[in-house]
Amino acid sequence: MWTCPGAASRSWPSRRMSELSRDAILRARETGEGRLLRTPLFTSRTLSDLTGARVCLKAELFQRTGSFKPRGMLAKLASLSEEEKRRGVVTWSAGNAAQGLAWSAAAEGVDCRVFMWRSANPLKVAATRAYGAEVDLEAESAAAAHERLLEHVERTGAVFVHPFDDPVRQSGHGTIGLELEEDVPGATTVVVPVGGGGLIAGIATALKGKRIVGVEPEGAASLTAALEAGEPVQIDPQTIADGLGAPFTGEGTLAVCRQRVDEVVLVSEAEIEDGFRFLYGRAKLACEPAGAVSTAALLAGKIALEPGETVVAVVSGGNAAPETASAILARR
Amino acid sequence: MWTCPGAASRSWPSRRMSELSRDAILRARETGEGRLLRTPLFTSRTLSDLTGARVCLKAELFQRTGSFKPRGMLAKLASLSEEEKRRGVVTWSAGNAAQGLAWSAAAEGVDCRVFMWRSANPLKVAATRAYGAEVDLEAESAAAAHERLLEHVERTGAVFVHPFDDPVRQSGHGTIGLELEEDVPGATTVVVPVGGGGLIAGIATALKGKRIVGVEPEGAASLTAALEAGEPVQIDPQTIADGLGAPFTGEGTLAVCRQRVDEVVLVSEAEIEDGFRFLYGRAKLACEPAGAVSTAALLAGKIALEPGETVVAVVSGGNAAPETASAILARR
Repeated sequence: MWTCPGAASRSWPSRRMSELSRDAILRARETGEGRLLRTPLFTSRTLSDLTGARVCLKAELFQRTGSFKPRGMLAKLASLSEEEKRRGVVTWSAGNAAQGLAWSAAAEGVDCRVFMWRSANPLKVAATRAYGAEVDLEAESAAAAHERLLEHVERTGAVFVHPFDDPVRQSGHGTIGLELEEDVPGATTVVVPVGGGGLIAGIATALKGKRIVGVEPEGAASLTAALEAGEPVQIDPQTIADGLGAPFTGEGTLAVCRQRVDEVVLVSEAEIEDGFRFLYGRAKLACEPAGAVSTAALLAGKIALEPGETVVAVVSGGNAAPETASAILARR
Repeated sequence: MWTCPGAASRSWPSRRMSELSRDAILRARETGEGRLLRTPLFTSRTLSDLTGARVCLKAELFQRTGSFKPRGMLAKLASLSEEEKRRGVVTWSAGNAAQGLAWSAAAEGVDCRVFMWRSANPLKVAATRAYGAEVDLEAESAAAAHERLLEHVERTGAVFVHPFDDPVRQSGHGTIGLELEEDVPGATTVVVPVGGGGLIAGIATALKGKRIVGVEPEGAASLTAALEAGEPVQIDPQTIADGLGAPFTGEGTLAVCRQRVDEVVLVSEAEIEDGFRFLYGRAKLACEPAGAVSTAALLAGKIALEPGETVVAVVSGGNAAPETASAILARR
């Protein structure tokens, strides 16, 4: 499907490493002003009682398009030259990145095309179209959609926005860190879902002096594998948390995470479902499985905490397919 | 099950009509300061596009205990004398009122006993116990639980807090109106779920000069029936919105609603489910069916709106049984 690490290096030339910095994050915040939302924080008494810490939930499922993605996508689009914007943007994704790019392109007045594949969730296709993007559904598979995208870029000169590995986008994700710094200044630990690693790289860059903990599904542990191997490793993601199904961590992202992420813990599928049901039943948040992994790790006692310390769990998105949500809720 | 209107008049002697006033609502807000939450407002772009108005959702499902109930319960408990508090409080309910009273009693340091019945949702029983209340589950039915409650009050002198018809409690519910006044001053229409009518009576008393629209399930139209008959009418509630299953509107509540509520519209079971799925899928709110009826009425075009006006739909609670939520999500 995605080739590793060639595609990653293509999207993140080493000269651009400096693009992920606190300054870039501050610029991204200006770009989003009045267009993106400052998402609410909720304190979870039950999680606090269970862990002995004070646990806050950063409810990023209430961001535009239902996930954190437009924070990065909007920063990326705003960084394009006028000439690049005229060429239009493309990506391939059947998930939150598609909606995030489509929404951001509309906000910046840029033409957008998303390459999906036939098995894509019809609701996500509809949402992406509703934001104004053209959706190409000719491909039978993700790999075929990628081929179609490359051919399209070759033919039209459209700008390819990588769905997860890009320092400019990560600076946009870092704006979550700025909000946490202001809204919950006493936080000592921040727990972040990890798919390709872009969200945690951005937040870890924004927040100095906090303990940053990543959480991956056991069945999609691309960052854990890359940290162990010292380089990106291709994996075959198998998890209900489809929002975390990146097949590898990019080289640039890995470098940032190695430096700035304190630990990465794994959660099982059953633990992810427990987290999902907890957020639904107790916190009243209609999150998606990917958004529940940070809570799942806290519930399962996977993260050692000091008594009384303040912890933030980022609930990264809420675009669950209704049939997935229905099945998880029915299982207990 | 509940007798009508005797029980209602018992809980609301005419001398206490004056207890539901803007002053009482302002006092209730002071009582809740630092203990209750100011719930967030969300703008729904999709609902705004559909209706041509600007639609905001008042997310009362994020209130303590997952519904608006503790606003009223805490006001009620704070209004008791020290001698009454020493006697402890009781109610009978298998729903949000039980959790609301249990939480509020703990907040005020008052002993609390709730009479439920064997078919009560085990999660609600557990939540009520977790807030520190004693739960009596001996009764086979709601009517039997009511009998047990009356016998208990007779024997112990405990203070009976009526689950829905009480002017002091309604002053607590009115604090939602104060928040709306400050957070969305331009609102012209406020749409409120109606069970016994206590929530809408409180909000309508707080908000002068706004159009107040109530929404009832077709299968539990106690306020509509009472407005037509000119007096409380006993009904047999049949609706998936179990939070709105009050068997009648109290006399005092009816008097307030006749004066201050502009219209009451009805929604079908299918429309309630559409509202539920919309709030889940688009607004990412894990509401309960009762909380979805205001949105359902807007989605179904049941409320005439001026183009561009600002409308608030109160999403009153989020304590859906997982199996109910699962079934509704699976149906589309």
